[in-house]
Amino acid sequence: MRRLAAALMHHPILDRQRAIVTTAITNLDLHDISRSVRTYGLSDFFVAHPVAAQRELAARIREHWISGSGAKRIPDRSPALEMLRIVSSLDDALAALGGDVELWTTSASPRGASLTHAAARERLHAPGRPVLLVFGTGWGLADEVLERAHEHLEPIRSLGSDGYNHLSVRAAAAILFDRLCGER
Amino acid sequence: MRRLAAALMHHPILDRQRAIVTTAITNLDLHDISRSVRTYGLSDFFVAHPVAAQRELAARIREHWISGSGAKRIPDRSPALEMLRIVSSLDDALAALGGDVELWTTSASPRGASLTHAAARERLHAPGRPVLLVFGTGWGLADEVLERAHEHLEPIRSLGSDGYNHLSVRAAAAILFDRLCGER
Repeated sequence: MRRLAAALMHHPILDRQRAIVTTAITNLDLHDISRSVRTYGLSDFFVAHPVAAQRELAARIREHWISGSGAKRIPDRSPALEMLRIVSSLDDALAALGGDVELWTTSASPRGASLTHAAARERLHAPGRPVLLVFGTGWGLADEVLERAHEHLEPIRSLGSDGYNHLSVRAAAAILFDRLCGER
Repeated sequence: MRRLAAALMHHPILDRQRAIVTTAITNLDLHDISRSVRTYGLSDFFVAHPVAAQRELAARIREHWISGSGAKRIPDRSPALEMLRIVSSLDDALAALGGDVELWTTSASPRGASLTHAAARERLHAPGRPVLLVFGTGWGLADEVLERAHEHLEPIRSLGSDGYNHLSVRAAAAILFDRLCGER
């Protein structure tokens, strides 16, 4: 299988009014997505934030679980948090993967031509460049990120009668990792 | 499809030393699992806690997002939190579903004969009684809960080289809903 990494973006992100904002880091995003990344055999989990103080917060959380008191209390958390790489921007994440990377974006709403999860799975299992799977926070990735994507993945569709599909990014990432990499 | 409900148990739960404890409610469990329940068309999300003050906390969180200031700020959260039903025990959840219910338990470690996710999916799509899918917090459901189960679902297996499969309950629930109910 190709190298698959995930990235969680905090800027440029849409807010409710579709203005471009920077979101704050959510502690459980780091935990949950790190644990899912480790379980599904992804290579890296990048958390991208342009504000140094927020990157330092993420670094402190990481260290707490890798070498601090958290590591003693819940040792199972260390291998997950070791997957976490804290960067300033999407470009830094791409550079950390060697630069020659396919960028795949995700969103909860449909956006033009999109790659089905089945097709994405097939492409991951064929030879090729590393893939960076990018998730937004807030109300989703800004257009300037989506426009850079080589592929945009289809949304996870609702099964409810009312079409509700407001999954948390923690849940959406877990489901996508399972669809793209899980055992079949 | 049969009626499918989910329950998140806070007692009796195992701790790291496999002692039986009561865990505290985690705010994001309520949000994430409610949102996944709503997205996948489940009928109910029971949160079971034996301590009245913890049930009141859950009720306050629910009301904040259904009729409080949260509902004004993020209206999308209301339909999800409306799925949340706060009960004292597993028995109360079973009674709320009418009593004649199949109890399916989940865990991260294998336990004797277990139902594969593919078989569980087939059974849910055939006629039958309502199913309650039960998740643990902490280090998992105590034996006294597992022993009452009509079926025990196979664990979500690791795809990593080291066998790591410590998913958060929020991620595990999302993946299971997708495997049991998601579009194929």
